[in-house]
Amino acid sequence: MELLMPFSPNLVPLTPISFLERAATAYKDCPSLVYNNTTSYTWDQTHGRCLQAASSIKSLGIKRGDVVSVLAPNVPAMYELQFSVPMAGAVLNNINTRLDPRTLSILLRHSESKLVFVDKHLYSLLLQAISLIPPGTPLPLVVLIKDDDQKFDVLSTTNDNNNDNNISVIANYEELIEGGDPKFEWVPPKSEWDPIALNYTSGTTSSPKGVVLSHRGNYILALDTLLAWSVPKQPVYLWTLPMFHANGWSLTWGMAAVGATNICLRKFDAPTVYNAIQHHGVTHLCGAPVVLNMLANLPQAKPLKHPVHILTAGAPPPASVLFRTESLGFIVDHGYGLTETGGLVVNSAWKSRWDRLPAKEQARLKARQGVGSLGMTKVDILDPKTGQPVKRDGSTLGEVVLKGGSVMLGYLKDPEGTSKSMTPSGWFRTGDVGVIHPDGYLEIKDRLKDIIISGGENISSVEVEAVLYTHPMVDEAAVVAQPHEFWGETPCAFISLNRNNTNQQEVTERDIIEYCRERMAHYMVPKTVVFQEELPKTSTGKVQKFLLREMANSMAPFKVTSFGNKVISQM
Amino acid sequence: MELLMPFSPNLVPLTPISFLERAATAYKDCPSLVYNNTTSYTWDQTHGRCLQAASSIKSLGIKRGDVVSVLAPNVPAMYELQFSVPMAGAVLNNINTRLDPRTLSILLRHSESKLVFVDKHLYSLLLQAISLIPPGTPLPLVVLIKDDDQKFDVLSTTNDNNNDNNISVIANYEELIEGGDPKFEWVPPKSEWDPIALNYTSGTTSSPKGVVLSHRGNYILALDTLLAWSVPKQPVYLWTLPMFHANGWSLTWGMAAVGATNICLRKFDAPTVYNAIQHHGVTHLCGAPVVLNMLANLPQAKPLKHPVHILTAGAPPPASVLFRTESLGFIVDHGYGLTETGGLVVNSAWKSRWDRLPAKEQARLKARQGVGSLGMTKVDILDPKTGQPVKRDGSTLGEVVLKGGSVMLGYLKDPEGTSKSMTPSGWFRTGDVGVIHPDGYLEIKDRLKDIIISGGENISSVEVEAVLYTHPMVDEAAVVAQPHEFWGETPCAFISLNRNNTNQQEVTERDIIEYCRERMAHYMVPKTVVFQEELPKTSTGKVQKFLLREMANSMAPFKVTSFGNKVISQM
Repeated sequence: MELLMPFSPNLVPLTPISFLERAATAYKDCPSLVYNNTTSYTWDQTHGRCLQAASSIKSLGIKRGDVVSVLAPNVPAMYELQFSVPMAGAVLNNINTRLDPRTLSILLRHSESKLVFVDKHLYSLLLQAISLIPPGTPLPLVVLIKDDDQKFDVLSTTNDNNNDNNISVIANYEELIEGGDPKFEWVPPKSEWDPIALNYTSGTTSSPKGVVLSHRGNYILALDTLLAWSVPKQPVYLWTLPMFHANGWSLTWGMAAVGATNICLRKFDAPTVYNAIQHHGVTHLCGAPVVLNMLANLPQAKPLKHPVHILTAGAPPPASVLFRTESLGFIVDHGYGLTETGGLVVNSAWKSRWDRLPAKEQARLKARQGVGSLGMTKVDILDPKTGQPVKRDGSTLGEVVLKGGSVMLGYLKDPEGTSKSMTPSGWFRTGDVGVIHPDGYLEIKDRLKDIIISGGENISSVEVEAVLYTHPMVDEAAVVAQPHEFWGETPCAFISLNRNNTNQQEVTERDIIEYCRERMAHYMVPKTVVFQEELPKTSTGKVQKFLLREMANSMAPFKVTSFGNKVISQM
Repeated sequence: MELLMPFSPNLVPLTPISFLERAATAYKDCPSLVYNNTTSYTWDQTHGRCLQAASSIKSLGIKRGDVVSVLAPNVPAMYELQFSVPMAGAVLNNINTRLDPRTLSILLRHSESKLVFVDKHLYSLLLQAISLIPPGTPLPLVVLIKDDDQKFDVLSTTNDNNNDNNISVIANYEELIEGGDPKFEWVPPKSEWDPIALNYTSGTTSSPKGVVLSHRGNYILALDTLLAWSVPKQPVYLWTLPMFHANGWSLTWGMAAVGATNICLRKFDAPTVYNAIQHHGVTHLCGAPVVLNMLANLPQAKPLKHPVHILTAGAPPPASVLFRTESLGFIVDHGYGLTETGGLVVNSAWKSRWDRLPAKEQARLKARQGVGSLGMTKVDILDPKTGQPVKRDGSTLGEVVLKGGSVMLGYLKDPEGTSKSMTPSGWFRTGDVGVIHPDGYLEIKDRLKDIIISGGENISSVEVEAVLYTHPMVDEAAVVAQPHEFWGETPCAFISLNRNNTNQQEVTERDIIEYCRERMAHYMVPKTVVFQEELPKTSTGKVQKFLLREMANSMAPFKVTSFGNKVISQM
């Protein structure tokens, strides 16, 4: 076999932008997006609007590789910008709308964002963030997204910070669309490895990291998720998942691939979701288990008239929530991924014959993260000490590692972080700790840095927390390592109590410890219990364990200077 | 944005072989393959058997890049070899079982095949082919596939050719499996651009061409077809399409991606298919329109108890066949592709709201080849003269051209052919002529070399043939160009008459010409009509127009030396 090389007809970069181009023909006059019962577009229109926006973005002086940020909820402009920013050759930077001004200003400076699209309701937040940027730093241009008829005067928004920065809103979004060229020849990536998106991790640690994803990676991931979830053509997809979360797990692009009707919502609650399901015939939606919880707990919820598929990730859906949502007619799938992988790369891979198992067994199987997806070529769990795959016994802990085309290009301006994210044998390290069951399915047990090593035993903080949560007086619980002279580390529990439960007597540290001793191996029992009004959390609601670790450390007689990489450094 | 480069965790070659690895976990104890009601395997077993076969193939001295041929119908070994040959690092060469010995011997020499897996019923054909290989040429090793309990003695097969070649059957397939290592570390491609398969085009021209496809290309294409056809997880797939046809259009690998149950059949007729649908709960099958025809025409066919999806390609399904099959409960999709693209890359992209159109309109829409698939990034039709895209008016003819990851690496040992397959602007030329309708859907009208250019007008031979086929006495019709001093070319029709229709009177050349004049533009009417007993065909049943052109040329007063590239050379 002589050497045949790639050549022009097949050397076409993989990019999810091509999905929109195809949808403009294959789903030309089919609905692409519906919002507020007042706005609806066809795929032909969405394609045209994205080209117009892209041409205007380019006209503003944005060059190939420049970062363009978007700070908006799930409104139509947000969906369109997922395409139009990369179509201008720029790198899409979706920003969490729940950030505080200080963090936002750090991200804007770190990314050197040249242009920010901001929803009118977040304009004040943006102003505050920009006011914190040191004078002399080049400021991004700002385009305002006003998606309804309500008059909104930029000048009337509060900007009471003491800042010297002149911020200029150069246009509003619809003006940008109108002024754009619907025949614009969009800027294709030079290589499929070119960056398409920059996503900052939500930061359970103190320093957010800028994850750079490629066109190739998100092409692979989007199709992968559609196949893992068996999404047919022309689904009706409800946007309950924020598009700023790993670019809507890449389904912003994926929905163009299947010609979906995207139902956009500025915000939602359970009645809104049920209404949308009935009104629009929603077939698919995504969300953290809290969304399932919300849907299951609506008192007036009635069984659905047609099945609705929910893909959940972030944490395994609890059995009780699963029972309730599935009994209402939702079909729940569960996946696992990281910002660094562009979306879900492990999924619970339900087999049809499991449908016949008892509900409890089904819930146990569905709570497992499962099997690597088609695009994530290799998934394994490595022993932190030896770097070798752990036993497939469902109990030996190790770090989940991955190899596959959707893994990020690296962290922006952080070669050290990028290089640390890889094992010596070339695996991407997720920082998550899990087990592999005998049938090959994996289950996440903890974050690597949250594992407590006590007398040589690995303790999953999540397992201890699970027991604490069963205590009727416990509202929130988080367990971290506390340095210990003899054991190395011991578990330290931070607890906030359920104040509504007024019938209960006062709970003491000793009560909690006793409660645990009856329910877990003794080496796992917290040696210290700290009661707090509320546990510290990130903008996305994750407990900030690094702060708790600092507290536990400061309370310990035996001090260490740095946590977190103890296990990693042995690999 | 600084330059971030691909690195080890994401630089993993795309290969469809990974689908089998995943299926071994995700569908471990689910059925993978059922054959003859006596053989059935799980995905774990199929994975193990493929590893065993791969390790044995390697043990036989097969090296990375060596060609390994398979000459077999859709038996279990055939399916397994689609994986095990590339897992040994070799290039899979599926051979059409209907070839004549001479052509087969040409292919074996051209490919320098090192090993041939041959079904026992094709062993005699292989012997004859090998006997035609000139002495001194290295011969391939032979492994015999005996898939049932019938005793089969190799020595008893006829080998009455006058040959000096010593052929040695070194093993039978099951021995190879048994002797192999189920823990074999299979040979991954060094690059995703490495060849995975070598497929010879069936040859409507005299010289077969060896199409070399890459791991990357078939990864993209397999997932593409699953998405285009909305194949869910765990379908029951009936193998009516020969796996040697463009590797079962890449669905051999694709079915592992979705954990299908592959129902294998050595041969089939309509009752067999209906039985399999009922017995195994078949959900999906593929085939040329002749398969639909066969299913529609079984007199005792009753409506199906569950819907069965059929994907057809090769020619548009005729309306009458479509009505009948769909009324029985089949759901028909239509696609278009070439061996050179690894499978289907354009599909009829059915929209749900077309379901409400009249049946005749539905048939017209479904007969169009449609829209480029997700993986075929660019599809267009270029004017042969200008090289520019044709008008989207449904009538302007041009050559269908493609750009996308599944396009072949090139033709084996044919740099000239490879280079000719590309336009100066880097498109892959399909050699097919079509139009683009105003809604952007494309429709194939003819092969480029079959287009007749008469007085500057392009005449689609297929359109003239379609009219001829409506004549009650015409059994087969083929129209080719005949050189003409004044017009350049004129249409020349070759016809075989329907001898069963004994009530009809004799038909003359003049009758046919009159018949055409009443039904088409006069410049399209054949100027010459030739009656033949039967038209010359290839092993796959395609009319060999190049032979008819030679005849038409020899009958013409005005001679030319070469046909076929007249339009191409203008591009």
